[in-house]
Amino acid sequence: MKLKIAVLSGDGIGPEVTQQAIKVLNAIADKYNHTFEYEKAVVGAIAIDETGNPLPDETLKICADSNAILFGAIGDPKYDNNPSAKVRPEQGLLKLRKSLGLFANIRPLNTYDSLIHKSNLKEEVIKGTDFVIYRELTSGIYFGEKKLSEDGTIASDLCTYTAEEIDRISHLAFKAAQVRRKKLTLVDKANVLESSRLWRKRVTEISKEYSDVKLEFLFVDNAAMQIILNPTQFDVILTENMFGDILSDEASVISGSIGLLASASIGKHAAMFEPIHGSYPQAKGKNIANPLAAVLSAAMLLDHFELYDEAENVRSAVEKSIELNISTPDLNSTNHFSTTNVGNFLRDFILDDE
Amino acid sequence: MKLKIAVLSGDGIGPEVTQQAIKVLNAIADKYNHTFEYEKAVVGAIAIDETGNPLPDETLKICADSNAILFGAIGDPKYDNNPSAKVRPEQGLLKLRKSLGLFANIRPLNTYDSLIHKSNLKEEVIKGTDFVIYRELTSGIYFGEKKLSEDGTIASDLCTYTAEEIDRISHLAFKAAQVRRKKLTLVDKANVLESSRLWRKRVTEISKEYSDVKLEFLFVDNAAMQIILNPTQFDVILTENMFGDILSDEASVISGSIGLLASASIGKHAAMFEPIHGSYPQAKGKNIANPLAAVLSAAMLLDHFELYDEAENVRSAVEKSIELNISTPDLNSTNHFSTTNVGNFLRDFILDDE
Ligand SMILES: [Mg+2]
Ligand SMILES: [Mg+2]
Repeated sequence: MKLKIAVLSGDGIGPEVTQQAIKVLNAIADKYNHTFEYEKAVVGAIAIDETGNPLPDETLKICADSNAILFGAIGDPKYDNNPSAKVRPEQGLLKLRKSLGLFANIRPLNTYDSLIHKSNLKEEVIKGTDFVIYRELTSGIYFGEKKLSEDGTIASDLCTYTAEEIDRISHLAFKAAQVRRKKLTLVDKANVLESSRLWRKRVTEISKEYSDVKLEFLFVDNAAMQIILNPTQFDVILTENMFGDILSDEASVISGSIGLLASASIGKHAAMFEPIHGSYPQAKGKNIANPLAAVLSAAMLLDHFELYDEAENVRSAVEKSIELNISTPDLNSTNHFSTTNVGNFLRDFILDDE
Repeated sequence: MKLKIAVLSGDGIGPEVTQQAIKVLNAIADKYNHTFEYEKAVVGAIAIDETGNPLPDETLKICADSNAILFGAIGDPKYDNNPSAKVRPEQGLLKLRKSLGLFANIRPLNTYDSLIHKSNLKEEVIKGTDFVIYRELTSGIYFGEKKLSEDGTIASDLCTYTAEEIDRISHLAFKAAQVRRKKLTLVDKANVLESSRLWRKRVTEISKEYSDVKLEFLFVDNAAMQIILNPTQFDVILTENMFGDILSDEASVISGSIGLLASASIGKHAAMFEPIHGSYPQAKGKNIANPLAAVLSAAMLLDHFELYDEAENVRSAVEKSIELNISTPDLNSTNHFSTTNVGNFLRDFILDDE
């Protein structure tokens, strides 16, 4: 397969970790005879520094011309600590999502046996956790009409969903469930909200096209409990924007290794892959940042193009590195390895495994 | 102090557990020379059976004429399993909240040393957890305008808050913080929502009247993480209706003993106290239901009238019963005690302690 990949490594540790993801992708390309071409573009603070714009047109063009986007991280203290700054690095990411119509945010959650002790939850509760959250990303209350009365005493936000917005992410989520454990849980608040009732109606309708997938419903307040009470019950969770924001952040604590979490944001004609973690500016250039979330995001890229064996190979390499404690200081307090060391190990593991 | 207390014990195990709460309140009245007068009224399924209305006018009148309401539980399988039932027991509770203007829902969360092992979270994470959530209960998106387009393809819900709605619960929450550890965390999503920005503006303004209370802000998605990552950091959490619904249910898993959680719902002229747990119809009449949540709700009633020593006495009795394993089967799998036994122990502990 031939893929054009836009590389937006961004700020802070973004470039270092993204470089390891590319190293791993190149090893996969070698081993499985694919051609991955990369085109670099700036975004975030570095883009403001160079062009005054956190998402220059040139970057947007490169993304639009690519099959996929590898994204690093965004943010720099010099903008965070300046409340009067009109242009902020984060705007680059929001504008990118909007411009490319990335309507589905996908976050896998799973545990690693040798890291399970790091969780705040008990091992017997979380062992075997393996689910993925499909969060609608471009509609709902975050994007609805906002009003403030003239005297400033009444404020409102409108949460709107259309059937089309619900349908497109629902199909993605059902398809994901089909190649997983064939269970989909819609999280809503249909006992109270009209928009939730539309979600429930559409998803019930769409489920008829995926009769091999078992559909369940859960109210959002109960879901917030169940994620802690019994996380292994879930396979695919589908939900609207704000519920997904809250629940995916809550669920990120399960594994105890927030630094390892990957994500994808998918649109009709675009797909972006990025680690959950931030730009971690204190670690920039020190070769200590953990590249695994970036590498696991690259594995999601492979999954997206149905290169399932290749993605699995990357995940095996990551698991092996964790098992052997070939890890950066955040996971390994003694005799730790550098960002580059970990990337090299992953590359070698993939290539030697032939 | 003389108090008129309306007793709405409701359905299922409601009457049994409420009876123990009254037993405990009577012991407190004896010991501290108060006069508590009780007037019983029906609500829920039993009210539908007797009058056809889950909240008869007579009940509402008794509540309005009382200083406080002791509430049991609501719900009966004969209505739950009948989707065509037009009148539902739960409507009684919703109508009661609305009629009495109960705008603040208060949920304390804390751990008990001898039950801490029951939690899904590790002991070292939750030990010492002691916070209370103030949730706005009568406004926000649950009560906002709902719309469905004529063709059924677009649905919306409006989230509105007025300064007055924010102010009244904020004062309650700040006052609670003053007699606790003097820290208040406002949970919102002010980076995205106009209504959240109004919350932040009003709460910041009001905080000037409570200069001894430290005010912090947390976005709701981060709050959902922090409740699991570090629950001991919180003292008073203040938040809007839906965020409070999600976070209070999430937080209910911390202690591992959901059956022990109490709550209060406060209005300008009314105050209602109820256990979190449901009507548990399978246990009805078996004298096995755990009365502690109902008893702890009675302790919140005492707190509400600033009978702090009395409330503390009730809590000590509860702690002692747990410590001595004088508990119903849900907490004590061997040589367990009945609902009545536990109530008698609490009464005797309070009276003997003179
Ligand atoms: Mg978030
Ligand atoms: Mg709830």
